[in-house]
Order: sequence, then structure tokens, then C-alpha cells
Amino acid sequence: MKPEVAVIMGSQSDWETMKFACESLDELGIAYIKKVVSAHRTPELMFEFAENARKNGLKVIIAGAGGAAHLPGMVAAKTTLPVIGVPVQSRTLNGLDSLLSIVQMPGGVPVATTAIGKAGATNAGLLAGQMLSMYDLDIAQRLANKREAMRQSVMESSDQLG
Amino acid sequence: MKPEVAVIMGSQSDWETMKFACESLDELGIAYIKKVVSAHRTPELMFEFAENARKNGLKVIIAGAGGAAHLPGMVAAKTTLPVIGVPVQSRTLNGLDSLLSIVQMPGGVPVATTAIGKAGATNAGLLAGQMLSMYDLDIAQRLANKREAMRQSVMESSDQLG
Amino acid sequence: MKPEVAVIMGSQSDWETMKFACESLDELGIAYIKKVVSAHRTPELMFEFAENARKNGLKVIIAGAGGAAHLPGMVAAKTTLPVIGVPVQSRTLNGLDSLLSIVQMPGGVPVATTAIGKAGATNAGLLAGQMLSMYDLDIAQRLANKREAMRQSVMESSDQLG
Amino acid sequence: MKPEVAVIMGSQSDWETMKFACESLDELGIAYIKKVVSAHRTPELMFEFAENARKNGLKVIIAGAGGAAHLPGMVAAKTTLPVIGVPVQSRTLNGLDSLLSIVQMPGGVPVATTAIGKAGATNAGLLAGQMLSMYDLDIAQRLANKREAMRQSVMESSDQLG
Amino acid sequence: MKPEVAVIMGSQSDWETMKFACESLDELGIAYIKKVVSAHRTPELMFEFAENARKNGLKVIIAGAGGAAHLPGMVAAKTTLPVIGVPVQSRTLNGLDSLLSIVQMPGGVPVATTAIGKAGATNAGLLAGQMLSMYDLDIAQRLANKREAMRQSVMESSDQLG
Amino acid sequence: MKPEVAVIMGSQSDWETMKFACESLDELGIAYIKKVVSAHRTPELMFEFAENARKNGLKVIIAGAGGAAHLPGMVAAKTTLPVIGVPVQSRTLNGLDSLLSIVQMPGGVPVATTAIGKAGATNAGLLAGQMLSMYDLDIAQRLANKREAMRQSVMESSDQLG
Amino acid sequence: MKPEVAVIMGSQSDWETMKFACESLDELGIAYIKKVVSAHRTPELMFEFAENARKNGLKVIIAGAGGAAHLPGMVAAKTTLPVIGVPVQSRTLNGLDSLLSIVQMPGGVPVATTAIGKAGATNAGLLAGQMLSMYDLDIAQRLANKREAMRQSVMESSDQLG
Amino acid sequence: MKPEVAVIMGSQSDWETMKFACESLDELGIAYIKKVVSAHRTPELMFEFAENARKNGLKVIIAGAGGAAHLPGMVAAKTTLPVIGVPVQSRTLNGLDSLLSIVQMPGGVPVATTAIGKAGATNAGLLAGQMLSMYDLDIAQRLANKREAMRQSVMESSDQLG
Repeated sequence: MKPEVAVIMGSQSDWETMKFACESLDELGIAYIKKVVSAHRTPELMFEFAENARKNGLKVIIAGAGGAAHLPGMVAAKTTLPVIGVPVQSRTLNGLDSLLSIVQMPGGVPVATTAIGKAGATNAGLLAGQMLSMYDLDIAQRLANKREAMRQSVMESSDQLG
Repeated sequence: MKPEVAVIMGSQSDWETMKFACESLDELGIAYIKKVVSAHRTPELMFEFAENARKNGLKVIIAGAGGAAHLPGMVAAKTTLPVIGVPVQSRTLNGLDSLLSIVQMPGGVPVATTAIGKAGATNAGLLAGQMLSMYDLDIAQRLANKREAMRQSVMESSDQLG
Repeated sequence: MKPEVAVIMGSQSDWETMKFACESLDELGIAYIKKVVSAHRTPELMFEFAENARKNGLKVIIAGAGGAAHLPGMVAAKTTLPVIGVPVQSRTLNGLDSLLSIVQMPGGVPVATTAIGKAGATNAGLLAGQMLSMYDLDIAQRLANKREAMRQSVMESSDQLG
Repeated sequence: MKPEVAVIMGSQSDWETMKFACESLDELGIAYIKKVVSAHRTPELMFEFAENARKNGLKVIIAGAGGAAHLPGMVAAKTTLPVIGVPVQSRTLNGLDSLLSIVQMPGGVPVATTAIGKAGATNAGLLAGQMLSMYDLDIAQRLANKREAMRQSVMESSDQLG
Repeated sequence: MKPEVAVIMGSQSDWETMKFACESLDELGIAYIKKVVSAHRTPELMFEFAENARKNGLKVIIAGAGGAAHLPGMVAAKTTLPVIGVPVQSRTLNGLDSLLSIVQMPGGVPVATTAIGKAGATNAGLLAGQMLSMYDLDIAQRLANKREAMRQSVMESSDQLG
Repeated sequence: MKPEVAVIMGSQSDWETMKFACESLDELGIAYIKKVVSAHRTPELMFEFAENARKNGLKVIIAGAGGAAHLPGMVAAKTTLPVIGVPVQSRTLNGLDSLLSIVQMPGGVPVATTAIGKAGATNAGLLAGQMLSMYDLDIAQRLANKREAMRQSVMESSDQLG
Repeated sequence: MKPEVAVIMGSQSDWETMKFACESLDELGIAYIKKVVSAHRTPELMFEFAENARKNGLKVIIAGAGGAAHLPGMVAAKTTLPVIGVPVQSRTLNGLDSLLSIVQMPGGVPVATTAIGKAGATNAGLLAGQMLSMYDLDIAQRLANKREAMRQSVMESSDQLG
Repeated sequence: MKPEVAVIMGSQSDWETMKFACESLDELGIAYIKKVVSAHRTPELMFEFAENARKNGLKVIIAGAGGAAHLPGMVAAKTTLPVIGVPVQSRTLNGLDSLLSIVQMPGGVPVATTAIGKAGATNAGLLAGQMLSMYDLDIAQRLANKREAMRQSVMESSDQLG
């Protein structure tokens, strides 16, 4: 199965966060590639990657970065595929810098931003699945199953309070 | 043409912002419905809307709200279609409350968040278009054309500085 | 004694905070039910719970949640009983996101918000007691006693400084 | 009818905000007194007011203040009646200072905090009504009617978009 | 020697911070009293303390508190002696709430605010000394000596870099 | 009468704020000098001014500045007189930058910080008066009178609500 | 004279801010080019510009941008010339987003960041001049003259207070 | 080789951060002096240092400080050499206070600000190198080599994901 999703991140240390995006994709049975691509340290690689994304058969790009997080927005500038940005929690400002650097894109170049850190990475994988589910009924069914499992799990946890 | 996108908003006053999402969709030739649906004032309507969205043929939902902005996240809780959240600029906290209420969703229920205010609404329309472009080459082409037009416009504006 | 207060929370992990609400209620001798009810993962359960709260004999609802904390506001949208919202401290933004998601409700649907974290949960239990004390002199007396005990405790702690 | 609610505020300039609390109470047919009571400029008056509130037949106190907003918390320290705090929007920090000064109360002395500014004042009046509705079916009915009217108004506004 | 300075704090746990105010006073040879006085839990004690401060021979009051920190401002409302407010670092918002609750006083009732936490407590003691030094040459001399010692210590530390 | 207070400010545009400090001093009958002294543009003048302040008979220095507001802290580094810092509201960050630049002084060099903007300037004048009042019974009396006038004014304003 | 400085900006609307950088350069007699170069709308142009900057004889690049401001950091990723970043004040978050997006660069790719808005743009021009002044005595002299003029202007403004 | 760069810091504890500036300079083969110079505790030393910096052959000054961080701005006020400011992460506010105190300089006196903490210190050293590289081809070459090494390192890290 040809990967339709790419999970990229600004540095190797972002993997601790971004692996949760991959976990979501695994759960949904969606093939993906994963890569370190740095906006600031490998700008040419980033450009090349983004420019060719559509013709390489990708459908969604998930990009995580922290601090002055330029990766999602710059990839978005070089492709018209949907780009999902995950703000990685930064050491000094708790990811508020990452969030604002990713979400406050100017009109014309959108980035679909998720929550800071682990929850955001988990959701980036699910969001990619939701986009694919528009035309893929299997994924739509797996998403529905996952929702049902979440529902069950909440019901059960309620009995264990206190 | 059956609408594949819905643009909903928490109150009529959000229209001043959300009309820019509609403008983007118009530019891309994408049919859409628009509606005021309030999480807090019409919760049943919101539930019904979200629950039936997929079976009604919708593919993407754009939801704008301000302050304690619960509409995008609650709609996302009732559908597995991708939901795009637009933080409307609030009077007191400039939309920081709207942004955090929308973007900080827990793992399991994603909202694709865009920038606060007008730019975010414009981009919500484009992002919906990008999602549809995964399988619709016409939209993909129109997105590419729009990018080229933006590029031209920047080049020209440079000559008018000063 | 039929419970007049419900303590609900968005996830099991909120119990570490919300147990302090229960502790306050225990101290005041107020019966309550406790439950995990997630706005995002069990929206139907939440609706059903809120819709029937008044006819089930509840008088006050205490709801705790973190991050994009929609539970208190959505319960408030489905009942006209007083709803007390407790912002649970979030991992990334220290509960500022929880606080703003809960407190910045639009005109028409109030949530009585307390402090972030443990102090807020403690106070949610007391606040529920204060509301009931409007018509229940026993609870009013117990609240007065607790205030006196707090006063004494401060006086004594003063002697132990340094 | 003897007033069961008091609406107090730290300075006369807070009236522009706090009048919306009175408007909500008027709508619900709830009698109230209104007063300027300053924590910093009339501390004795504030103490006396709070200390005698319960014996004077009051059931709920609504207190609005801005900046280093100490009025709600100090009144709460002198009574065990429920105190609703309204953060008035401040000139320099948009009411973030007011909000934090009111909501971050220590365990033991709760203040039921609403949103910053007009929405918060409107909701303070409604919240007082909700508390009284626990034992007053007429008020409960009026609250339900108001909700229904809000619902209708949203439905109608939807037709006027664009 | 009759104490001219009082060091008060909202709770016993504030001592870990406020002891640094006492340390500064000790270094300057200034007599002081120390006390837990809570705005919210012992409001009458606080009023009595503040009201009698001047006639009891006090010249400066140092008050530390955290969260919705009302102690410094309320003491200031009941005396015309200078009140120094120390924002104690809070668990959830790092003391930003303490700082804004103390410093943003309305025109008419000043609080001389220092930095959040230990540095602010140290400086509160020094600031009290500086006020007394306006008329006490011994204290002025000790302050000058301390400055000189600080200067020396910086010069020496420079040699130990790396 | 020899001036015992100096009111200095970082730039002429700060006068719109700092004039309220002078107004307070005028009300209290306290003589003062006023001066533009810029930490960044006239550093030598600032040093000379601060260094000689005590020997020139000054007792208290009030310093207002905005943005990266270094004036109060730098003056405090060159004198052991009490320095009151007034954060002037800045254009971009509403004075949050001014506040943090002034209040977050390291241990050893205190600045007595007041509120951002007009209220802070008014209070700086009063605070200077409170310091002088430790030894000057006339000023103490005038401060007490002012408090009484404030109290009266609140009482009267209460009658004019609505 | 061949331009040694480039002033670039993300959009034409940034000119209202960035013209103050040009004004500073004009005052110092430094030749410069000015251009609109958008990271998001003209990424190839940006890359080409940055890549060739050094070989085209440029010595310093001044880049202004607002919101998710990626221009300064991305230019810095493509050149080893010093890049000065000016955070343009944004509509919704007052430039805090611009500031954090520019200043929080990861280790390895510096951006020399100045203040938000007009002051920052003015200073960007001066900072470029200071860099050139390391080897150009004429510019060093002009910088010294400007400082002296600023000093004079402060001295004079002091006489016009009140 | 005569040092052309000075690395100064407000206190010895800043060394843990500022040593990364020295590491960058070492890597680039740039000679430097390092020193503790405190704006608040050794103001005369600071003035003397800054005033003589240019005539002592320095070309760039790197200054790190935390909290109310006045060192970079005050040094910048006494020299027309480029001053690079590094916001050291503060205990209470995570360095947001340091950042705003350094970056928000008024028009006329620039400070080239880098990121908070370690990344900012690393980049301060590199930025100094970039400034010197305008006229020193060896340093320019070393900067280019370092960029290439960074690029390689990212490429390799990509293979180790997961």
C-alpha cells in the first residue's frame, strides 16, 4: 500500500511527541512515511519534499515543530495538500510559542493546527484519517469503531472513581 | 451541485468573520450551506446537525465561535468528518480565549484550528478546498491558480513600496 | 438521603482534582453522586444527564474538566440548574486554557467558575453547600463552623512561624 | 417583595457593566438592591454589608470589580451566602487582572466567577436566578422560557445570514 | 527596641517565601513582628491589625500572599502607612495571578509591589529599610555597606566563570 | 520648602501619565522636582542624578517608564533611597512589558512598583506621601482626610446608580 | 554606492512599520534595497534572495513580518549573513505572536530580534548601522552624533514638562 | 589574537546559560573575554566597560540577564557597538520577563535579542560570528561548514526515528 500520509518533524527530539501521530495512523491502518525535515537546518530538503508531495501520491502532511515553529507553515507554502501542524511543547514557554507560530498563518496559506504536545499529535493522526475517510469507507468505519471504544472506556472508568 | 461543505457559526455576529470562509469557498467554486448553530443556545440542533452531517453528504464542516468557543469541539464530538475551527476575535481577550477553547482538544477528538479572526476564516475555506482537492483535480487546479495569483500580487506590490 | 449534588468530570484522571470537591461535600454532610461524563467522548450521555438533572432531584452540578474544557458549559446549556465549573490544571498551559474555556461563557448560559486545580475543586464543594444553605439551616451552620475552624487554624499557625 | 439579591460594585464606573446583571434580574422578576461598595475605599461598609447579608434576608450577592478586584473575595470572606464575582474589563490589561484577582481564591472561600465584562454581568443575574430556582418554580419556569426564546432567536438569525 | 516593621502573610505556607523579608530586616538590624493574617480566613483580625498599625508604632507593613492575593491591598485600605506587597509564587499560574492581584490597585490606595517570590521578599525587607533610612542614618549606612558587599561579590564571582 | 520628592520619567510622552503623580503630591502639599531623565538616552545624567539624590536632600524618587523600562531599576541601583516605579502603558503590549521590566528586580535592589498607567502614577504620589508620613504628622493627617473624602464620595455615588 | 543592506517585508502592509527602518538607514547615509518578499506567498523568491544575498554584496538583512512570522527565520536559514527580525504588530494578538515566531529560533540559526512595531523597525536600521560601524568609521561617527542629538533632545524636553 | 567579542552576564548563575555562547565562539575560532557585570550591583563597572568597549577593540558585545533584565539595554545605551541580548530563563515567569525587558527597547537604542535560554545563548555566539563574517572570510567559511554539518546531522537523524 502506497503511503498517503507523511509525518515529518523539525528535529529528532520531536519524535517523543510525534510518535503519537503515527500510533493513531497505525490504529486506523493508514500507511505513512516518517521523516526528520528541518525548516531551518534542511530548507532545501523541506522545499523539495513539499513541492513533490502531491505528485508523489501523498494526500495529507502532518508536521510537528517547537519554538519558532516554521516547518508546518513553510511546507504549507509549497503545496496545496492539507497540512496539519502539531505544536511541540517547548522548554521555556510551554509550547505557547510553538502554537502561535503555527496557528497564526496569514490568509492564503492554511495550516490545520492541533493541540500542544501529545494530545495534538494523537489528533493529527486521527484528523488525517478523517480527511481520508471522506472517500474511504473502511477508514470511516474504523473511526466510528474507535469512537465507540472511547465511549465504552469512559463508561467503565466511571465505575472506578474514588 | 450538492453542498459538500457546511459553514456554521455560534451567533449571527460571527458572520462578519465567517463570511471570509464563504468567500474562499466561492472563489474555489465549492458549494456550501451556511447556518447559525449555537452550542449553548441550540444544543439539540447542533447535535442533530453533526450527527447527520456525513449521511447528508457533507464532507467538511467549518465552525466559527468566540469566547468559550465550544461549537467546533462539540460538533467534532458528534461526527468523524473533519471539523475546521475558526477562533472568532473576542471583545475582551482578543480571541486568545477562543483560540485555546478550540485548539486544546483532548486526544481522540480533533479540531483543525486556523488563525484568530479574518485570516483564519479565509484559510478555513481554503483548507476545506485542500481537503476536497485530494480527490478533485479541478479544485486542486483552482488552488494552484490562486497561489500563482498571490505570488504575482506580491511581486507587483514590491514595486509600490515607499 | 437523595443526592442533591452531582460531581462530574471529563475523564478519570480529573479525579485527582475533583475528589477535593467531594471532600468538601462530605465535610458538610451533603449527599452527592459522582460520575465520569465526557463532553467529547460521551456527548449523548452528557446531554441525557444534564437534561434530566432537575427532574432527577438534583439541585447543583459540579463539573470539572481540563484543556479545551467544554463539559461545564455544555451541561449548563442543557439545564437551568446552577452549574459550577472547575478548571483542571492542564499539562501544557497550567490550566489557563481550562480556565478560559470555562469562564468566558456567552451571555445567556452561565457557569459559576472556581479557581484552577485543587483549591477550585475544594471551593466548588463549598459553593454548592452555600447555595443549598440558602434554604437549609443545618448546612448554613456547618459552613459557619467550618469558617470558625479555619479562623482558629490561622491563629494557631501564626505561633509556629520561623 | 423583599430583595433576595444584592448587586454591588467597586465603583460607580462599574455600573456600565453591572447594569446587565440588573437587567437579567428584572427579566426574571427578581427583586434586588444595588449599591456601590468599595473594598478599598469603604472597607467598613463592605464588612458590615457582608456580615449582615444573611440576616437581612439576602440569598445571593453579585459583586463586580476591576483591576486588583478584591470586592467579591472579601465579601465572600465575611458571609457564607453564595457570592458571584463579575470581572469588570480593566483599561490596561483587558480584565485579565480582574479575572485572576476574582477567580483564583484559596480553598475555603469560594467566589462563583463569570466571564469578563457585559456577558459576565448578564450571566451573574441569570446565575443568581438559577440558584433561587432550586426552590422557586416560577423562576425555574422563567429561566426555561428564556432559554426557549434564545433558541428561537438563533433559529431566526440563521435565515438572515449574508 | 520597639518593632517598626510588621511582616505578615496570608498563610503559613507563605513563610518559605516571606522568611527572606525577615532575613533582610535582620541583616539591617531592624526589629519586626511576624504574623499569619489571612484576608479571607481572618478578616476581622486583618482589619484590627491594619487599623491599629500606626498607633501601635509601626512604620511599614510587609504583606505577602499568593493567588487571588488580597491581603496587601486590604491592609492598605485600612492604614495610611506604606504597605509593601510580595506576590508569592502560586502553584498554577507561577505567581502571575498573585502579581496582578497585588499591583493593579485602583488610584487612591497604593501597594508598593516587589518581584514574585524569593527575590521580592528579600527586596521587601530592604525596601522597608530604605524607607526607614530616610530618617535613620545607621540604617542608611548599613544599606550602603550591603551594596558595597554586593559589588565585591560580583567582582569576585567574575573570576570564577567557566 | 526644599523638595523631598523627585518625579522623573523616561520621555516627555510619559508626562501624560506621570502628571497624576504630581497631582497627588500637590494634593498632599509635598514639594517636588520633575524631570525627564532617560536611562537609555541620558545614562550619565541618570547616574549623576541618582548618585546625588540623597545628598541633595531627596527622600523618595518616583520614576515612570514604558516598554523595556529600565529607569526605575537603574536609579535604584545607584541610590539607597526608596524608588517607586510606575509602569507606563506601552503601545504594543499594554504595559505588561513595562510592568515586568520594573517589578521583577533581582534580590538586593528593590523597586516599589505601582499599577500600570494613570492609577499607578496617582498611587506613586500617594505612596511617597505615605513614606514621608512616617515622620510627618501633617502629611499623615492629609492622607487620612483624603481617605475620608474618598469614602464620602463612594457613599454618594451609590445613590446615583442607574 | 552599492547597497549593503536589504529591507524586506512579508507584505505591502508591513511598509507602514518597515519604513522606519529605512528612515534610520537614510539618517546614517547607508544605501539599501527594499522589497516585498513573502515566506508564504513567494517562497522561491525568498530562497533565491537569501541564497544569493552574500554574493550580491549584501552585508545585513532586515526582515519584518507579522503573525506567524516566518520570513526572518527562513531567510536566516538560507544565509550566514546577520538577519535582523522586526515583529510587526498583528491585529489580534498585538504582535506577541509575531515576536515569539521570530525570536524563539532554535540553536543554530539566529535572528537578531528587535521590539514590536515602529520602535523595532527604527532600531533595526540603527542595528544594521552598528554592525557596519565595526569597520566603517564614518558610520560610527554618525551613530555617535545621533546619540548626542538624542541626549540634547531629552535635556530640552525636560524643560517643557507640565 | 585580541578578543573582538565580550560575553558578559548579570550574575554568576547565568553562566549555565551563557557558556553556550562561548561554545559557539570557540567553534568558530573567535577570541572573546567573559565577565560577570551586573547592571544593578556593579553599575559603574558596567558603564566603564560599555563606554570603553569600542576603544578597547571590541566589535560585538553579548550580554545575558534574567528577570528585570537591564544589562543588555544599559550597555547598549553606552556604546554604539552592536549588543546582543540573551534572555536567561527566570524561575518564576520562564523568561518571559527577561525577554520583554530586553527586546522592547525604545527607538534609538537597539538590542539584538535572541531566544530565551540555551538556544538563545548558542545563537548569540553564532550571531556575533555572522557579524564578524561580513569582513572575515574565514569565519564566513566556518559558518558555512557548520550549516553543512547541521544539515548532515538532520539527514542522519531521520534514519533513526522510531
